[in-house]
Amino acid sequence: MFVSRCLRLVLRDVLSQSCLHHFLLEFVGTALFLTASLSAVLIKADLGSTGPTNHSRPPEGPPPPGFVACPLQVVLVFGLSVAMAALSMGGAVHLNPAVSIAMALTLRLRLWRAALYVIGQLLGGVASSALLLGVMGDVAPAVNQVSSGVRLHQAVTVETLITLQLVLVVMVTTELSLPEVATPLLVGLTVSLGHLVAVGATGCGMNPARSFGPAAVTLDFRNHWVFWAGPILGACVAALLNDLLLRPRWRCPGDWW
Amino acid sequence: MFVSRCLRLVLRDVLSQSCLHHFLLEFVGTALFLTASLSAVLIKADLGSTGPTNHSRPPEGPPPPGFVACPLQVVLVFGLSVAMAALSMGGAVHLNPAVSIAMALTLRLRLWRAALYVIGQLLGGVASSALLLGVMGDVAPAVNQVSSGVRLHQAVTVETLITLQLVLVVMVTTELSLPEVATPLLVGLTVSLGHLVAVGATGCGMNPARSFGPAAVTLDFRNHWVFWAGPILGACVAALLNDLLLRPRWRCPGDWW
Amino acid sequence: MFVSRCLRLVLRDVLSQSCLHHFLLEFVGTALFLTASLSAVLIKADLGSTGPTNHSRPPEGPPPPGFVACPLQVVLVFGLSVAMAALSMGGAVHLNPAVSIAMALTLRLRLWRAALYVIGQLLGGVASSALLLGVMGDVAPAVNQVSSGVRLHQAVTVETLITLQLVLVVMVTTELSLPEVATPLLVGLTVSLGHLVAVGATGCGMNPARSFGPAAVTLDFRNHWVFWAGPILGACVAALLNDLLLRPRWRCPGDWW
Amino acid sequence: MFVSRCLRLVLRDVLSQSCLHHFLLEFVGTALFLTASLSAVLIKADLGSTGPTNHSRPPEGPPPPGFVACPLQVVLVFGLSVAMAALSMGGAVHLNPAVSIAMALTLRLRLWRAALYVIGQLLGGVASSALLLGVMGDVAPAVNQVSSGVRLHQAVTVETLITLQLVLVVMVTTELSLPEVATPLLVGLTVSLGHLVAVGATGCGMNPARSFGPAAVTLDFRNHWVFWAGPILGACVAALLNDLLLRPRWRCPGDWW
Repeated sequence: MFVSRCLRLVLRDVLSQSCLHHFLLEFVGTALFLTASLSAVLIKADLGSTGPTNHSRPPEGPPPPGFVACPLQVVLVFGLSVAMAALSMGGAVHLNPAVSIAMALTLRLRLWRAALYVIGQLLGGVASSALLLGVMGDVAPAVNQVSSGVRLHQAVTVETLITLQLVLVVMVTTELSLPEVATPLLVGLTVSLGHLVAVGATGCGMNPARSFGPAAVTLDFRNHWVFWAGPILGACVAALLNDLLLRPRWRCPGDWW
Repeated sequence: MFVSRCLRLVLRDVLSQSCLHHFLLEFVGTALFLTASLSAVLIKADLGSTGPTNHSRPPEGPPPPGFVACPLQVVLVFGLSVAMAALSMGGAVHLNPAVSIAMALTLRLRLWRAALYVIGQLLGGVASSALLLGVMGDVAPAVNQVSSGVRLHQAVTVETLITLQLVLVVMVTTELSLPEVATPLLVGLTVSLGHLVAVGATGCGMNPARSFGPAAVTLDFRNHWVFWAGPILGACVAALLNDLLLRPRWRCPGDWW
Repeated sequence: MFVSRCLRLVLRDVLSQSCLHHFLLEFVGTALFLTASLSAVLIKADLGSTGPTNHSRPPEGPPPPGFVACPLQVVLVFGLSVAMAALSMGGAVHLNPAVSIAMALTLRLRLWRAALYVIGQLLGGVASSALLLGVMGDVAPAVNQVSSGVRLHQAVTVETLITLQLVLVVMVTTELSLPEVATPLLVGLTVSLGHLVAVGATGCGMNPARSFGPAAVTLDFRNHWVFWAGPILGACVAALLNDLLLRPRWRCPGDWW
Repeated sequence: MFVSRCLRLVLRDVLSQSCLHHFLLEFVGTALFLTASLSAVLIKADLGSTGPTNHSRPPEGPPPPGFVACPLQVVLVFGLSVAMAALSMGGAVHLNPAVSIAMALTLRLRLWRAALYVIGQLLGGVASSALLLGVMGDVAPAVNQVSSGVRLHQAVTVETLITLQLVLVVMVTTELSLPEVATPLLVGLTVSLGHLVAVGATGCGMNPARSFGPAAVTLDFRNHWVFWAGPILGACVAALLNDLLLRPRWRCPGDWW
């Protein structure tokens, strides 16, 4: 009976207009940002058909001309599209399962809401990949893969590191009560930073929804766990680091509730 | 008689100082931004005469060295010049027929004012192209064209997507009542994002005035409809998405008026 | 006697602590920004000794690999160093004779102060070039020159256009009473925009102090007038455009005084 | 007895919670920013194994394709990671021994606190380098070295110049009482500017903690003094220039205390 009452309360919260609106914003925002970002990756891969930057490629021989400059375009596209999609959705969206999980872990977000947001983000990722599959005909170059020559523990470390930085920035922006415009831009810069660091090693996941969408559409799940384990680990470490060491929220166990 | 009274009211509004001043700002702003952006495209095309980035070019053989880095220069020029021209005009200009149409569609702008702004923007585009034709001698490389290998429906989809994102950002900035400086910069970033996504596929139109100017001066109207249909479709979808789903303005039909 | 009284008043204003402090800020700021910018140009020219980007070079054969990416580095250096030098000096400096002249033309700055600022800026330019000559041994690659294949009237037009945009932005920022941090950043962005447009045509002058410094140290004054005429013309047109059309300050002749 | 009382006061201040928390923030922040920055340098060096940008390399023959574009990636990574790490730590951290020394020199920071911060920063640098050594297997390409063809006095001059600019910006931001978000971003931009200027000459030190970390782990201390002398000299000159000339803090000797 206690359980059923809990369930009813949860269900009432989930079905409230505010929660469904947030779910919609997460879905539309993730779909928007991934459609823009991944189509940029695909158009580039299509034109310079010899050198898809964001795709696993053995470094046989010298890189083709322009290879090194490519990452900058990908870096800027991801950062800007996250910033602009988050801004378009009103600035209070996560667009990233790792962020929602960190928020739930630190009791900033109710568990069932976090689950709902994650579902919305994953659906958004799949929807954008399916749309691109229909329009472009192929989304394989947009699948995150561990570059040859990079070991799995290195890939996980890099993904952990960049998501840790991302979630630290998200936590700071929620605490400083910045103007609505600032948070999306700061998050976009951090996403660009993550791509600058990781694009050569893993194509930069940093966001399980971004990795899951193309993987689900192409059914290419090789090493897919890396793009879930790294970001979620980084997000949890960042959340704990932030709340326990950098800006201690709890001084005694009773503060937790 | 009712019609003539309406016409007289419209005419009085159109001929008011405020409206003519806005028309002037749209004309000068669009001319300024397109002169800077297109001259950057032309100077680059002129120097590296083998590789005009913003121009349709079949991808025969490997791209010339530096080809991949070029888009970044174009990307930054368009974003910065839109931002600075809009800022110079005071921050409340559209500089883009698609934006004016979306504003008129959502009743944020009177229909005749929107028409006047669009005329000002198109005249600005033609004026800047004519100026560049006189100074540089050739503006053909600045004409937006669908890259070979890109199908028309793909081009329209990409143009729709990037203009949708642009208009969403414009709508958000009008609602958040930001400082006058922020809106031009955010719009400039979104224009840069659009170029990052679309420069490889269509040279990035995103703005019918930008596409119309060089096309009118060179009389090269191949696939020109793409650069009107895509942006206008994207702008209308964005306007409806914003007003009906993301930030509902109208809850009952009576709210429309 | 009237003249001598005027002269005495002028002299008293010029020798006031505020005026001399501004002179010092203009000198130090221009020297700082040009030392950083020009040393970046020189270090690059030194390393890749085949391809000085900022220097006149006939386009014989295909450009060397990486040639196209170079301008971005120069573009960013000039924009950032202007922004940071202006910020370091407190945000209210011009660092550019064209800006001081436009300010004097529109009666925003007393004529003798403008003259003093211009002298400070030119001295700063010469000082930084002399310092770089001593440390690096050669500053020839930093001299602004009209690229071969670019005609003089094209060079003047481009210089006029980019300085016009710069001065429009400066005028807007003085009117919007922005925070002290915003103006240097906006000016820096506009300087970057100018370099994106003009670096291929003239190496981008945009600032007579920047052009005069290396030219005076190397005594290479070929086409040097271009880098004075273009910016000053652009600045004057911008000042008049701003005050008469865009944001009319004067409605009757009596408003001038 | 006087000495022992002084020591006790110092010790009490050092062992206060506030001071230890700042020490922790300096340690974590420096480790975070250097792990991200240096791993980007290492991943790049690993992939394009022929062209480590941030490493001394004789310019034999033409540079490999893409060589010139590399610096931009390094430039952006360092700027963004400094900005985001400082922001994550709350915006009031130095992350740079030269900055702490300049703050102590101008009596903005107690001497023992400055010493403690410097120790935290150096430990952070060593920790991040050790972590990268464990994960990546080699950190030699991340060691700052004077490029061949660049003389030592040139390297010191460049390092002095860019740190001077950095410390001037830091001093201005502390005086303008900006929002907490602005300072890290401005410092990040200045760090990017420094890399744009110096990456070709010295790999850009600008921060003794950044130079010390990889050097200590690889025991490669060739010319290491350059990366201490240049930044500290630049920081001290900037501090004196700021306090004596640009924004005079002291008008008579009595103001010092």
